[in-house]
Amino acid sequence: MTNFLDLRIDDFGFRTDIPTRWGDNDMLGHLNNVVYNRMIETVVVRFTMGPLEIDWQRDQSYPLVVESLCRFHRPLAFPETITAGLRAGRLGGTSVTYEIALFGEGNEIPASTGHFVHVFIDKDTHKSIQIPADIRKLIETFA
Amino acid sequence: MTNFLDLRIDDFGFRTDIPTRWGDNDMLGHLNNVVYNRMIETVVVRFTMGPLEIDWQRDQSYPLVVESLCRFHRPLAFPETITAGLRAGRLGGTSVTYEIALFGEGNEIPASTGHFVHVFIDKDTHKSIQIPADIRKLIETFA
Amino acid sequence: MTNFLDLRIDDFGFRTDIPTRWGDNDMLGHLNNVVYNRMIETVVVRFTMGPLEIDWQRDQSYPLVVESLCRFHRPLAFPETITAGLRAGRLGGTSVTYEIALFGEGNEIPASTGHFVHVFIDKDTHKSIQIPADIRKLIETFA
Amino acid sequence: MTNFLDLRIDDFGFRTDIPTRWGDNDMLGHLNNVVYNRMIETVVVRFTMGPLEIDWQRDQSYPLVVESLCRFHRPLAFPETITAGLRAGRLGGTSVTYEIALFGEGNEIPASTGHFVHVFIDKDTHKSIQIPADIRKLIETFA
Repeated sequence: MTNFLDLRIDDFGFRTDIPTRWGDNDMLGHLNNVVYNRMIETVVVRFTMGPLEIDWQRDQSYPLVVESLCRFHRPLAFPETITAGLRAGRLGGTSVTYEIALFGEGNEIPASTGHFVHVFIDKDTHKSIQIPADIRKLIETFA
Repeated sequence: MTNFLDLRIDDFGFRTDIPTRWGDNDMLGHLNNVVYNRMIETVVVRFTMGPLEIDWQRDQSYPLVVESLCRFHRPLAFPETITAGLRAGRLGGTSVTYEIALFGEGNEIPASTGHFVHVFIDKDTHKSIQIPADIRKLIETFA
Repeated sequence: MTNFLDLRIDDFGFRTDIPTRWGDNDMLGHLNNVVYNRMIETVVVRFTMGPLEIDWQRDQSYPLVVESLCRFHRPLAFPETITAGLRAGRLGGTSVTYEIALFGEGNEIPASTGHFVHVFIDKDTHKSIQIPADIRKLIETFA
Repeated sequence: MTNFLDLRIDDFGFRTDIPTRWGDNDMLGHLNNVVYNRMIETVVVRFTMGPLEIDWQRDQSYPLVVESLCRFHRPLAFPETITAGLRAGRLGGTSVTYEIALFGEGNEIPASTGHFVHVFIDKDTHKSIQIPADIRKLIETFA
């Protein structure tokens, strides 16, 4: 990913607001580091269920996380609402890397940047398969 | 339940230790109130999977929570290990009320007391059924 | 509280929407029981920070939970957005009982009902004190 | 880090057992991906409070996470107890990278590998500082 300081929410084709919960803050008065991962999961899940129209129960294949990375640049804290941005990075045959940034309220510099790698798995064989063509096309519009 | 101040860990037939996690504390520096409920769930799950030998996947019926109560008497905090006690209270035809207390390290007075009510549900009809006889017998030994 | 089956969202003076997160569901495919408690905490926190204008850092007194009760009537599940309702029940000298209900999307019957009891504590003495007059007046408008 | 398939628990100087909780599993019947991050946080916190004897309240400096990485190789699931291993990787002037692996019960191949980067921060200036000499020495014994 390019230098995170240069990233703005407009650099991300998919954007979503995630309210924080009281219990998301830890003893230090900020979002617990693990909650950043929860936010990253949330934007990925909303993207796959929304624009990608993936349905875990219906579809023959499903995406499985194989790697997640999170960099912490600035603190976030309840009761802020977080704005998360996602765009498609590296798109391989069987996997896709989503580039993600989290923004606090009223702050255009990302508080966190990271990525989340999905591999597509066949429901019957439990092995990785080519990303279905219709999903690949949708992903490409968010590159 | 009798006055909680009189309760001691020895009053509970089933006892289990539950380590806390850093993220269990909230901004106030103590276990978040919802984590008490997590501890209560944990002792109930360990009791049903342990002494009661209940197996959600194998058994024809399964217990479903219909009510949980938690009273907060004293703060608990990471990195304490919590000791939870459980005993069977009211035992009806289709439901059982577990009485539960949570103890901090080196404190014989309960930090929290409460209960958790399970109703037994038939897997096929999704309706409540009589508690299976073998499970009822096991529960009675913890009354 | 009156019979829960009769309760509707309009019976609650304070109402708020709470989106669910993927990880809120447990193995059974529904909101984990502890997440109901998280939802109850969320509506209470939003009420105290919103209409009651309570500020934990600034105020001389703060509310402390001493009891929470949750009854489970129907399953809730991600990706539903939960609508939570709160109204003031029993109002004592130093404590208040909030009556709470959780509603699933497109269902007017509550999925869960319960309560949450706050005692007001003095920051210096750590003992319970009379609910401040201005806060009491605000609570009464939600009775 | 070397190829994860070659890593064994004995390759890690610090080892700790972490019991799972029912709610750690998600809809897919395995540990939710975010729970892996909770496990990674847990082993780091135990290491800093244990061998490193760091005390957030007492010490003049404290470690702050700036990056976390998690790779998912095999599923883990409640009710397994996870064994986590940690060793010191890159040790800079103001930061240290902990290499971490998570192992399921009875499986010598890591289910997850990753890292967690701590920067040491001065309590007063809130800026990064050199890792205190005594802590550096302790970290080096786990390299």
